[in-house]
Parts: sequence; structure tokens; C-alpha cells
Amino acid sequence: MNDVVSVDPRTGQTVEVVAQETTTDEVAQLCAAALAAASGLDALGRVGRASLLRSLSAALEARREDIVAIADRETALGPTRLGGELTRTTYQLRLFADVLDEGSYLEAAIDHAGDTPMGPRPDLRRMLVPLGPVAVFGASNFPLAFSVPGGDTASALASGCPVMIKAHGSHPATSRLCFEILDEAGRKAGAPEGTLGLVHGLRAGADLVAQPAIRAVGFTGSVTGGRALLEIIEQRPERVPFFGELSSLNPVVVTPHAANERGTTIGRELIGSVTLGAGQFCTKPGLVLVPAGAAGDSVVDAMAAAVEETAPQVLLNAGIVESFERISARLAQAPEVETLARGAAVDGPGLAVAPLLLTTRAARMPPEVTEECFGPVTVVVRYAGENELFGAIGELPSSLTAAVLRGTGETELPLTISERLRSRAGRLVYDSYPTGVAVSWAQHHGGPWPSTNTQHTSVGTTAIRRFLRPMTWQGAPAELLPAELTDGYAGIPRRIDGALVLP
Amino acid sequence: MNDVVSVDPRTGQTVEVVAQETTTDEVAQLCAAALAAASGLDALGRVGRASLLRSLSAALEARREDIVAIADRETALGPTRLGGELTRTTYQLRLFADVLDEGSYLEAAIDHAGDTPMGPRPDLRRMLVPLGPVAVFGASNFPLAFSVPGGDTASALASGCPVMIKAHGSHPATSRLCFEILDEAGRKAGAPEGTLGLVHGLRAGADLVAQPAIRAVGFTGSVTGGRALLEIIEQRPERVPFFGELSSLNPVVVTPHAANERGTTIGRELIGSVTLGAGQFCTKPGLVLVPAGAAGDSVVDAMAAAVEETAPQVLLNAGIVESFERISARLAQAPEVETLARGAAVDGPGLAVAPLLLTTRAARMPPEVTEECFGPVTVVVRYAGENELFGAIGELPSSLTAAVLRGTGETELPLTISERLRSRAGRLVYDSYPTGVAVSWAQHHGGPWPSTNTQHTSVGTTAIRRFLRPMTWQGAPAELLPAELTDGYAGIPRRIDGALVLP
Repeated sequence: MNDVVSVDPRTGQTVEVVAQETTTDEVAQLCAAALAAASGLDALGRVGRASLLRSLSAALEARREDIVAIADRETALGPTRLGGELTRTTYQLRLFADVLDEGSYLEAAIDHAGDTPMGPRPDLRRMLVPLGPVAVFGASNFPLAFSVPGGDTASALASGCPVMIKAHGSHPATSRLCFEILDEAGRKAGAPEGTLGLVHGLRAGADLVAQPAIRAVGFTGSVTGGRALLEIIEQRPERVPFFGELSSLNPVVVTPHAANERGTTIGRELIGSVTLGAGQFCTKPGLVLVPAGAAGDSVVDAMAAAVEETAPQVLLNAGIVESFERISARLAQAPEVETLARGAAVDGPGLAVAPLLLTTRAARMPPEVTEECFGPVTVVVRYAGENELFGAIGELPSSLTAAVLRGTGETELPLTISERLRSRAGRLVYDSYPTGVAVSWAQHHGGPWPSTNTQHTSVGTTAIRRFLRPMTWQGAPAELLPAELTDGYAGIPRRIDGALVLP
Repeated sequence: MNDVVSVDPRTGQTVEVVAQETTTDEVAQLCAAALAAASGLDALGRVGRASLLRSLSAALEARREDIVAIADRETALGPTRLGGELTRTTYQLRLFADVLDEGSYLEAAIDHAGDTPMGPRPDLRRMLVPLGPVAVFGASNFPLAFSVPGGDTASALASGCPVMIKAHGSHPATSRLCFEILDEAGRKAGAPEGTLGLVHGLRAGADLVAQPAIRAVGFTGSVTGGRALLEIIEQRPERVPFFGELSSLNPVVVTPHAANERGTTIGRELIGSVTLGAGQFCTKPGLVLVPAGAAGDSVVDAMAAAVEETAPQVLLNAGIVESFERISARLAQAPEVETLARGAAVDGPGLAVAPLLLTTRAARMPPEVTEECFGPVTVVVRYAGENELFGAIGELPSSLTAAVLRGTGETELPLTISERLRSRAGRLVYDSYPTGVAVSWAQHHGGPWPSTNTQHTSVGTTAIRRFLRPMTWQGAPAELLPAELTDGYAGIPRRIDGALVLP
């Protein structure tokens, strides 16, 4: 047995032993309970699960102070950020309840029997059904929004899938508290025994993914971690979907017009985005394309000044400190890269690092600078003219986001830039910064490899699609159909004989 | 260089050399052309691509006689089946044109900027965009519906993705003719150079999947073939989606009531489904659960008589003959399995085999009988009581389909059976047979591994979703948005601030 300990990153000291690592047998027992809960959770129906989600939201709100306090002690992200993160999570649970009420997510379709140009067609009725128990991996950087509570858990429960959660080792006490709150509230709201499960430890995470009962995996983390889990899935007798949100450089392009108009403001705001949450966002701008010349200089000078004014930032755990130091050194030492600015030197105990600003030229951009480095560092790439800009964009990997900062009313160059960025991103941001990912109907948080490995999102209402699969009933008598597919039902939007019909 | 030859399966003789296997360099050149075509095909827009699809449909119709004749010579599937298959394909092209006209497939959503319970939200607009060039693998058993023309090609072109097709070695001449017709019609209809490409040979197929320009793969074939292509994808620097339709047992359950009411009819119809297309359908019923006792005997006796009356059936190629003989022998020799009936002995040249009917008991069902065997063979599993029936269902792998044949008005047992089959199938068929997969809005042709490896369909209008990914524009000026996401646009259903709005 190995202790699971809670560390205070401000001091680097262990505060308490939270749990023991979950054993292989315990993982199997929890997964068996989750499998047993699946049909009951599905049978709650949209109304029952909407009510369950609202209860979970209220239960978290009722314990807001305790949750924020323990999360702050474990992550050093601060009460403001963590309070906002909890607000996001409780809102998200209620939004998924709205998604259930609205019902479009079922993609219900009815084709009545009849003749077609390809011959007679039987009665066909299609909608989405839950996959079964889902494994969710908590992320280090969102203890409340991508962890025990958060987008994966909310969307999986909404879809009707029991959720087995692997607690992140960076915040086991927060995970335990949130789990206890959700588990108790879930039972009171009628969720079947086994609807939620919690495991601790790397080995338990691997065991979880190998369990036959697990029908999908949601993961937010590194490419290396994602690949390791994918390899486990590839060895299962039955492969299951893996939804990985893995790595993202999040390039930002500052046009010459924008630099000219408001270079200093842009520079200051950019560093605000880079250092938000100590640079530990998957949407942190990791590479900024800035024009050569005086206008661009104003951006870069403001960035450098802002970095120098920034106090040391406390990172989430010792592993992130180590990888920040290793990768940022690799970037800084790459050919053609210079260090522009560094924040105040770190002094004292704890897991703090100094923010770092690097620069290179587009014409000689080394491949090292296109690697994601978690933490407060970014690379300014100076471009002289559009050809250099487009050449550099052509070297970028795919990201969750790409941003364009334009001059007032400027459209021609931004359009060309957008066309080149489009194949490399899942979200195009204009005149703003990529950090801050609203939970909404039109949000998309995904993109081509390596940002994700699927065509799905982990933020926004369409995240529910990950945990559902289509099913068609052919020639089924009404008694054997789900209510939403019977002729008389009118509670949700449906496609009937090809035409979308609203309630 | 290796010859690509066309073989007549009725004689087993080579008829002509169709082409040379495509070299690695040629594959790379074709993929470069496909990549260059991508933005132009996207820019045709929904209207332009709908027109393109209708032109392709008309061009195939105009050459119907030539296409059916050459396909019959290469596959021995007969002019009636092949004429129907071409009708399906040309209808499908027109149906995807309708999908483009209707526009829901874009999943367009607009969230206007505003305050939310989690704080201010920027303007967010989401819709689906094409992935880029797609590789499609022709299937042996559908020379006209899952090959150069067919569901993958139609849905990929509709989505705006150029298509590189790997011709199946069983029908290279049919592939060449269809490609020439589609390529010429496409050019006339304004498709950019490189929109369609054709390659021949196993090595060329592997090269195709490894090409960086290829952004998704559509494959209909064996689990072994699918795994081999997945391994190539896993070694790419950038992983891409693989849509495999792989293996399917398609269990059929005959209830005691159904057997009692119309056992003889069911038995005869079942063998009709088993021997349709010489048993070379991915939806062939490969295992039939029949009650023990007299009523079940009437089903089985009719099946045996129908098998004995069936003439030898010509298979598509020597590889399928070999695997049919090998796997059906393994099934027949498994413990507790008996041979019930065999069709007339094969006499003469060509790739013919005799249909085969096997049987075993649910209480002692050996695992061998749950393996798919392509070709005219099925296994009857006799069950004595519901416990034996449910036990046998619990041993079945996932399939594309599962069918229940009920007594008139019977619902109780069918409901319990359906609940147990649901997690093991993508389509539940009542009082009919799984062969015959209508192309329509509510169709689903997919299911958990090993039937497919994704949550998508390869038949029906939602097949287009495979070749699209979501993209969100944040704070974009109207000039930089796709028309479908601008405020004034009203041509398609859209979700606006959470509410679905019809045109």
C-alpha cells in the first residue's frame, strides 16, 4: 500500500495522508458497481438526470468555502481563481441539466416506412444512447473544473454514464472532499449505487482503463500520458473511445496595424494571459508572432516590462516545476533564441518559478519553440513581412486555439491569417486572448492532433456527444421504443422523414 | 511494378491486366494534389457541392449498363443485385446533396456576447468544417456501394473533403471505370483538380494511410485489416481518425411464440438472408437463437431444407473462399457443434462453395461459434428456456445489428431480449432480417468494437459527421465568418443563444 499525500505547493511540505492508493481489486469492484449502476442511471431519464445534476450543483455551492479553502491549500491558485472555477463547475452542471431538458442532444430521428427511389424502406428510428461506465482523469490545473467535478463528469452523468474518476495526485484532498459531496448528494437525488467512483494512484488509473466495464475514457493531460493510456486501450480485447485533450501551443498573431495602434496594451495583456494561473492553462499563448520594427518593439517592450514586474509564481507540483525548468531551458538554449526578460528571482521554499520571455526570428525559427511548455513562459517570434509570417505559421503544430489581434476594422490580412490558422486550431480568437474558455452551446475546445485525438470537445454543451453512441430501431413496436422515439412524443426537437421538427 | 489483374470468379481465370500497382511516389503525388484541392472543394460551398454530387449521380446513371456488366464479370453478384447496388449509390449521392441543401449537418450555433452566471461571455460561433483529404478503402463485397462510388466517397465529398480511394483487388476494372466516370463528371461540375484520386495495391493502401496529407481514413473490411491500418496511423507524427467497419455476427433471436406461429416461414426467410449475396454481407445473420422443442424444430427443418436446395454460391475472390473454408471448418469442428445441412456439392471451376448450416446448444455453446465467418454459413443455437437464451446472449460479441423475431403482438420477452441485446448492437431489428441497410436519415450502421471502432455510422446521412470537425470563432468580425454563421443568414437550422431556430 502506498500513501496518497496532500502537498502544500507554497511550502513544498506534505500536509496530510489523504488515502491509500487504490488496489487493482478495489478498482475492479468499483467498476463492477459502476456497470451495475448503468441501466438505472439511464432509466432515470432526461428529467431524472437533470434533477440529479441540479442537486449536485447545489451541494457543491453549499460547501463552497470548504472546497475553495482546501483547493487553495493544495494548488496555491488563490481563492479568487478557485471561487471562479467552482462557479464555472456548478453553472456547468445546471447547463447540462438544461441540455437534457431541451433534448436535441439525442439527435432523435424517425423515418417512417415507405417507398424510396432505392426501394421500400422499413420504419427506422435513431437516437443516441449512453456508452456505459466512463473513466475520467482529473487534471492537475483545474482541481474543480476538470477533476472530480467538471466538464467530463458533468457531461458523462448527463449522458447517462456512471463515472469512475482517477483523482489527480496534485490535489487528492480536494478530490476526496468533492467526491464525498457529490456522492452523498447523488444518493439523495436517486442516483443508483455505483454511479460515481473515485480511485487514487497512477497504477489505479492504468487499471481503470484496462477494465472491461469501462466504455470510454476522458483525459486532460500530456501527450505522453495520453499515449500511455491509448496503448492500454489498444491492448484491450474490446477497444473503447479515448478522448484526450493533450497539448496546445496556442499561437497569437499580432498584425502590424494592431501593434501600431495599441502595442503597449497588447504586450501587457499578453503577459497577463501567459501568467494567468501561473501559465498552467492548456490555452496559454505559448508563441506570439509580432512584427519586426518599431511597432512590434512596443509590444515586446511591454511584454518584457510586465514579465520583470511579475513575482515568482507557485506551480502546482514538483513534476511541473521540473518540466517547466527542463523545457524552458531547452527553448532558451535553442539556436537563434534569446532571453528577453525574466521575472524576479525565486527566494525561499515552495514550488515557485520565475516567469520567462524568449524571442527568435520567424526567418530562423528553430523547431524547439513549437513545443508546449507548461508554466509562465512564452516565445515572441518576430516576422518581417507577410511571407515570413506565413512561413512561421506553416511550421506550427495544431492547437486548441489560435488568436489574431487586428487593427481597428482591419480584415484583409486577418482573413489570410485565419485561412492559414484554420487547419491548425479548434477555436479562432479575434482581438482577445485564448485563456478563458466559456462553457456554452457554441464553444469548442478541441482540435487536430496533438491538441486532441478526436473530433470532439471537452468544454461546452456538445461535450456530451463523447459519451453517447447512435442506435437505430428497425420496425420496432411502439412498446419497445424509448419514449422520445414514439410517434406521439413532442417534447424535443426531432428529425421526422428528413425534416427537423421543433416541439 | 506489379500487375493489377481482373479475375472472373465464375471461372477463376484472369481476364485482363487493369493497371500497375501504384508506387509510393505516385501515392505522394496524388495526395499532394488532393491537399491542394481541399480549399477549393470547401469553397464550392454547400450549393456547389450539392450540384457536384447530383452531377456524379447522373454520370453513373448514364453508364449504368457498362458499370453493371463489368461489375458482374468481376464479382459474379449478378445484374439484379448490382443494378440495385448502383441505384443505391446514385440515390445516396442525391441524398447527400439534400443533406447539404438542408444544412443541419453543420451544427451551426451562435452564442452572442453577454453576461452569464459564470461571468461575461464573448461572442462564440461554432460549426463543422471539413477535415481535409480522406482515404477510402473499397470493400470486396460492395463494388458499387462501398468502393470507388459509395457511402464513404459520397459523404466525404459532401463534407468538402477530397477523396483518395484504394481500389479493392477483387474488382479493379469496375473501380477504374467508376473512377473515370466520376473524375470526368467532377471536372465538368467544377471540382478542383485532385478532388478524386485512385490507387491500386496493398502497399499503396498502406502508403496512403501514412501520408501526412490524409486527415481521416474510411475502411470497411476485416478486424485484421483494420488493426494493420490502425498501427500505421499510430506511428504517424499526427494521428488522424480511423473509421473502421470491421466485423459483425448479427445474432437473430427467434422467440418461442414466433417459432410456434410461423416457424417454417422464418426458417426459409432466414436462409434467404444468410445466402443473400452469397453470405458476403457485413449484416449476414451468423448466429440464430432458436427455441428447443417442436416449434423450434420447424424453424430448423425449414432452414436445413432451404440450405440443401441452394446451389453452390460463387464467392468474390480466392481469399474469401480460403477463409470461408478455413473458418467454417473451425466452426463445424468445434465441440458440441453438429452439421445440420450442406448445399449441393461444388462441381467445376471457379470460386464456388456450398452453403452450410451448423447447430449447437445454448447450454454448451462453444466460443468458436461467435466468430464471424464471411460467406454462406450460419449457426443455429438451440435454447431451452429464457435462462439459456440470456446466457447465450451474454456471450455474444458486439455487432452492427441484432434481430428479434416475435410472435404477433408479443412484447414482454422481446423487451427483455432487447435490453440484453442493446449494449451489443448498433441497430435492433424487429420481425425482419438484418441484411438490407436502407440509406436514410435515421439509419445507423455501426456499433461497439469489434463491429466498428468509433461512435459513427458508415451508412445514412449522419455518415457525413465522420469527415467534419467542430470549429469555433470567438469575437470574429462578420467579414471573417463563414456565411452560415453571420447574424443575417437564415438558410439553415441554427442554435442561437441555446435555442434551435429553423429557417
